Amino acid sequence: MASRVVVIGGDAAGMTVAAGLRRRLSTHDEVVVLERGTWTSYSACGIPYWIAGDVGSPEDLVARTPAEHLANGIDLRLGTEATGFDPIARTVSIQDGKTLTYDRLVIATGAEPVRPDLPGIHGDNIYGVQSLDDGQAVIDALARKPKHVVVVGSGYVGLEIAEACVARGFDTTVIEQAPTPVSIVEPVLGEMIAEAMRGQGIKLIVNTGVTGFALDADGRVSAVTTAMDEVAADLVILGLGVTARSALAEAAGLPLGVKGGIVVDEHQRVEGFDGIWAVGDCVVTKDRVTGDLIHLPLGTHANKQGMVAADNIAADVLGEAATLAFPGVVQTSITKFCSLEISRTGLGEKQARDAGFDPVVVSIETTNFAGYMPDPGTMTVLMVADRASRRLLGAQIVGAEDAALRVDVAATALAAGMTVDDVVMLDLAYAPPFSSVWSPILVAARAARKALDG
Amino acid sequence: MASRVVVIGGDAAGMTVAAGLRRRLSTHDEVVVLERGTWTSYSACGIPYWIAGDVGSPEDLVARTPAEHLANGIDLRLGTEATGFDPIARTVSIQDGKTLTYDRLVIATGAEPVRPDLPGIHGDNIYGVQSLDDGQAVIDALARKPKHVVVVGSGYVGLEIAEACVARGFDTTVIEQAPTPVSIVEPVLGEMIAEAMRGQGIKLIVNTGVTGFALDADGRVSAVTTAMDEVAADLVILGLGVTARSALAEAAGLPLGVKGGIVVDEHQRVEGFDGIWAVGDCVVTKDRVTGDLIHLPLGTHANKQGMVAADNIAADVLGEAATLAFPGVVQTSITKFCSLEISRTGLGEKQARDAGFDPVVVSIETTNFAGYMPDPGTMTVLMVADRASRRLLGAQIVGAEDAALRVDVAATALAAGMTVDDVVMLDLAYAPPFSSVWSPILVAARAARKALDG
Repeated sequence: MASRVVVIGGDAAGMTVAAGLRRRLSTHDEVVVLERGTWTSYSACGIPYWIAGDVGSPEDLVARTPAEHLANGIDLRLGTEATGFDPIARTVSIQDGKTLTYDRLVIATGAEPVRPDLPGIHGDNIYGVQSLDDGQAVIDALARKPKHVVVVGSGYVGLEIAEACVARGFDTTVIEQAPTPVSIVEPVLGEMIAEAMRGQGIKLIVNTGVTGFALDADGRVSAVTTAMDEVAADLVILGLGVTARSALAEAAGLPLGVKGGIVVDEHQRVEGFDGIWAVGDCVVTKDRVTGDLIHLPLGTHANKQGMVAADNIAADVLGEAATLAFPGVVQTSITKFCSLEISRTGLGEKQARDAGFDPVVVSIETTNFAGYMPDPGTMTVLMVADRASRRLLGAQIVGAEDAALRVDVAATALAAGMTVDDVVMLDLAYAPPFSSVWSPILVAARAARKALDG
Repeated sequence: MASRVVVIGGDAAGMTVAAGLRRRLSTHDEVVVLERGTWTSYSACGIPYWIAGDVGSPEDLVARTPAEHLANGIDLRLGTEATGFDPIARTVSIQDGKTLTYDRLVIATGAEPVRPDLPGIHGDNIYGVQSLDDGQAVIDALARKPKHVVVVGSGYVGLEIAEACVARGFDTTVIEQAPTPVSIVEPVLGEMIAEAMRGQGIKLIVNTGVTGFALDADGRVSAVTTAMDEVAADLVILGLGVTARSALAEAAGLPLGVKGGIVVDEHQRVEGFDGIWAVGDCVVTKDRVTGDLIHLPLGTHANKQGMVAADNIAADVLGEAATLAFPGVVQTSITKFCSLEISRTGLGEKQARDAGFDPVVVSIETTNFAGYMPDPGTMTVLMVADRASRRLLGAQIVGAEDAALRVDVAATALAAGMTVDDVVMLDLAYAPPFSSVWSPILVAARAARKALDG
């Protein structure tokens, strides 16, 4: 009997499910995708590079166009916003008042930028950056030659957009509530990032919460206000992170976790609801180190979850056993600020303490290749380990060329539950153009071992 | 009661043991190192870069000088060659006829270049490259402006030295017995290396075994002879690998494995001999994937083994429990040929088959960062997996900037015994300047999974 899968949301996660299903199911089975916008399968992570001018057009950020999806047999409906769904009747309501029945439903509604409820937040020229349309709005705003760009928040996106703005010659200020930028790395590394930001001409204001936005007579932003001061601004970009876009799920009574993320099992099934899966930036996912459910919106997870959901839905439709499960994440992330590479995985010190570990934190500085080779750069590797179990809990890197990707070794070690003693003995690649005889991760693991030994 | 540890050999492995012991033992305990040459603690891996001119002098390759070791309280005796030892009497004989008693003995005699017993092999201007003195000899030979340099063998060292010679403007030929260079990577990758070598102006002759060396009337090499041909040569560099320098160990009846490597346990103790440890290029070590003992001379293993031996000897002296063990290796290695990066870990197809696995081999090509970023390079990742267990068995990479170090993820996964399914789900770092949303190792693991699924 033919069945119908309806997917709400046509970006990375949703389209990965749809494409995966199209490969597995018969042509009698319908795969419908409802996308309220006009874009599909795009890289939100690439938006800052588009703003910077490294990427020429939004089309370049699109992995697969609507036309390609349609040609693949997906019933993709652009400009079609789902306004609700009924898990019992198995129907989705659409903005035109129509309803669509489904046998299986996939929620892939993504995330939306945090817009705190502050005075003036709804003024003009204040943008979050999450969708290609957001990116276009910022590019258009920059084309109007703002005198003062203020980025609120200094996570990766804030940092990347500040870099793009200052590189394009705009007066750029970043306001950060925490004592150092990029608060997902430890302050000792954050200081290095602060220095690099100031070195590029960015005005960095730390320890400062934004209290509101001053608007001119036309409703356009003219300044960002803080407890201490007022910072002139005719373009404001919000880099305060995102929350799950899960209003539809909430209205239907689905279980929600932190930041509104929908709670799913390892097959991306919504717990307690038959025939509903959720994937991507709208779900919470398991942290493999702590076992906690966290909200970690990233394209790489969206793609894996989409793959898992497609496998499980196809198995469900075909009456086969599912083969894939999503094991969760270890909070790996990476970015670059000019030539400074930044990465992290696992838990920071506070996260570790909050999770009930007794963390030991070490940091080492080393060259990024053998010290006798010409012009070695340097990097700082910070490592967090648990005193009792000696387990690796996390690693963070800030440094020059060839520094940050080394965090992947720690990410792999975390997935395997290795101790720092195990990490010290890893057989990592060594040759003078790539590392010293003790590669940076090993140097940090030795320091962690030493700290654990007293 | 004071004890005496005697270490034979003062390069990386031996001096790591000596320095580790000096930190742990009391000043009453003697740590004696017998080094037949004049250098200590140097990076043999750096020699090709010294020959290339990237490194200014041999002193730059020395991590710690004899003076530093002496200042640390190590009784270092340069120019002192051990000629034998007696495991029962616990004595070492020295070239001057004297003997030295020991309580504990460490053998760290290193490796020596393979010099096949071919006609003319003892002619002048034919060099192996293993020690700093060898490096100096090659540099001196190049200063005499040879007309034709021939490198025999195309392992990493052969490749690195050929690159150095051609970069310095010398006519350079590489003769390789196998169909493709760098036979520790699969032929499909070897072809890429061959192309890069020829692109740099190296004359590469493959499928060709060397049968001897023609010498002129003064005993200097004038040509390298093969079954087919004669290749003019007034400087020959042997890049045929190394064997353990274990004649002393053999004479004393110690157990030897492949390539003459001394057999040791995970504490670097020589099996069946009380009070004798061996470390570095003169030992065989466990392959963690197959469990076999292999000879894998690399500075990174020498350093780890030296650390383990120092810990175990110190524990033995102090009557404490040893804390460290060397778990073995996964055959990770890396090099660079001009801008082409090359790395591998684990087993190749033939190695896997020989070890009793049923290998599935896949290779994928991908960009080294998001395809929409400016000027992405490409890389090929080859992956080997076991059909029955789905275990990852090996990975190999050839590609542009930022390609080769990614092999460390596979090396870590091998140490953890992961399946390719586990690897697909690793939370690896993703951001447009560093990788696509599926990072290259994950793309390869997906291809391997697909091949396993039939």
